[in-house]
Amino acid sequence: MASWDLSISKELSMVADVIKESISSQEELLTEIASYVIGAGGKRVRPTVTILSFYAVGGQKVRDVVKIAAALELVHNATLLHDDINDGGIMRRGKLAAYKKYGVQNALVTGDFLFTKAFAIGGKFAPAIVDITAEACVRLAEGEIRQRMRTRDLSMDEEEYIEIIRRKTAWPIAAGAKIGAILGGGSLEEILALGNYGADIGIAFQIVDDVLDVVGDQDILGKPTGTDVKEGNITLVILNALHNGASADRKALASIVRKRKNSAEEIRRAQEIIVASGAIAEARNKAAEFGERAKSQLGILPPGPYKLELIRLVDFVLQRES
Amino acid sequence: MASWDLSISKELSMVADVIKESISSQEELLTEIASYVIGAGGKRVRPTVTILSFYAVGGQKVRDVVKIAAALELVHNATLLHDDINDGGIMRRGKLAAYKKYGVQNALVTGDFLFTKAFAIGGKFAPAIVDITAEACVRLAEGEIRQRMRTRDLSMDEEEYIEIIRRKTAWPIAAGAKIGAILGGGSLEEILALGNYGADIGIAFQIVDDVLDVVGDQDILGKPTGTDVKEGNITLVILNALHNGASADRKALASIVRKRKNSAEEIRRAQEIIVASGAIAEARNKAAEFGERAKSQLGILPPGPYKLELIRLVDFVLQRES
Repeated sequence: MASWDLSISKELSMVADVIKESISSQEELLTEIASYVIGAGGKRVRPTVTILSFYAVGGQKVRDVVKIAAALELVHNATLLHDDINDGGIMRRGKLAAYKKYGVQNALVTGDFLFTKAFAIGGKFAPAIVDITAEACVRLAEGEIRQRMRTRDLSMDEEEYIEIIRRKTAWPIAAGAKIGAILGGGSLEEILALGNYGADIGIAFQIVDDVLDVVGDQDILGKPTGTDVKEGNITLVILNALHNGASADRKALASIVRKRKNSAEEIRRAQEIIVASGAIAEARNKAAEFGERAKSQLGILPPGPYKLELIRLVDFVLQRES
Repeated sequence: MASWDLSISKELSMVADVIKESISSQEELLTEIASYVIGAGGKRVRPTVTILSFYAVGGQKVRDVVKIAAALELVHNATLLHDDINDGGIMRRGKLAAYKKYGVQNALVTGDFLFTKAFAIGGKFAPAIVDITAEACVRLAEGEIRQRMRTRDLSMDEEEYIEIIRRKTAWPIAAGAKIGAILGGGSLEEILALGNYGADIGIAFQIVDDVLDVVGDQDILGKPTGTDVKEGNITLVILNALHNGASADRKALASIVRKRKNSAEEIRRAQEIIVASGAIAEARNKAAEFGERAKSQLGILPPGPYKLELIRLVDFVLQRES
């Protein structure tokens, strides 16, 4: 993990404690499955953005923001549980996906359990905060639905792709940033700017995720690559390759992406076509563009160590390999 | 529908309006699936208990309790969506189950969407109400998990069965009753008594549900019978038959319930064994016992029309055929 999380490592471990406490249940299996998913870690970008936003506007007493960061992580893990069921993903963070280990039914119920626990925490806050959290969850569901409706749909374009990942990935991160800024006592301008920062870094994060699904190292990622081609998710790298590749390559890629079942060889071929088309560099440029936009939102903040960390977090997100 | 809902038909239609408004989404498919599930109706026992409890303690301004009743209905429908996926139920309220019509993935996401919408409403209330709602959802998940762990497990007993349905069915109804009484300005004793009423009527309701899964009319029910035997849910009627039937019958039933796949003929045979054992009458007696307990909780309430309706609701639940 990059050094940026050292300065708030105490807060991140407080987040972990709140989560641990909230997932204890009379039914040990629920606690076990929840711990299995959450214990696998992840990059903790969401709680990091939330807590840095809080401090960056001058927040002092960290207790409340830690709770919200925990609630947002619970929501995130609930959606991971349900997403894996929906996508048929076998591995997650280097371990067998929960539904593979514990069964679809138990994984589904544990996702509902985590949603509930998140709202049990979030529901204690002011209505504005409840609204921001709930809206993020609604946008997330909308993003999921829209992505599924456009599966294997080659008429997708970049704008639609950005709208989908804005809902699926960026909105929840933006929600954390906004709530962090609200709880930290930020001005309206600061709250809006940090919300935009969260949205922009979220989009950059997802574009890099889609890049890594093509060129990432499976061992470092903890999950197989090529899943977007396999599932027919029209990501930015696929869109780029469909527009800019050599003509024969574009046809071959289109036919693979359209197909419901592909051999490992076909998936490998699609990945090669994407790389050969220059789509990876193009997508990285787009991610960097959103990264710059994220940084530029921070101009309104007073100088200080947490503002610097928010800037460094953008670089981490752009450069990450897992 | 029994006449008891006439006196609060205005409030029930206000509940329907809140639900309708809250499930509107930028993604039409989400709204469509949500409307499909919720539009199918159901018995509306949950909102009825909530609203009657409110009025029975002298509640006046109905706006808030209508919102909570809507939130609890949203949770209920979210769990129905997820339950049908988990159980493989084909029909629900006389229509194709949503996951069959719209696909597992879309149904799963719509369930999450409904949970979120419920909490967006519930999260605006006082912490005590958030806690009661969230706890009911947690118990529900616990009940689901425990039921699955005991699937086809013939070492189940009546006590364990009651504990499962207390969590799965009774707790959410009790939550509505308690919140109704709180919002209606009831005394602590009234709140507790109505909570107990909700739990007792909830258990009676579920026992009758399990009875109807054996002797109900599929056309009136809107779903096939025999699902508990098929799925290996050890309900009270199955437990009773396993204990009280003729020896050969008990062995035959045990072997059918233990099997993972049964023919339609075997399911029919199991139903016949259950009926022949006297298990239905025994279960109805148990339901009536909880029904009486529910009524006896109401002694503390001042006399009045809503108290009478709560009493009549028990009779409706015991006598219902769908």
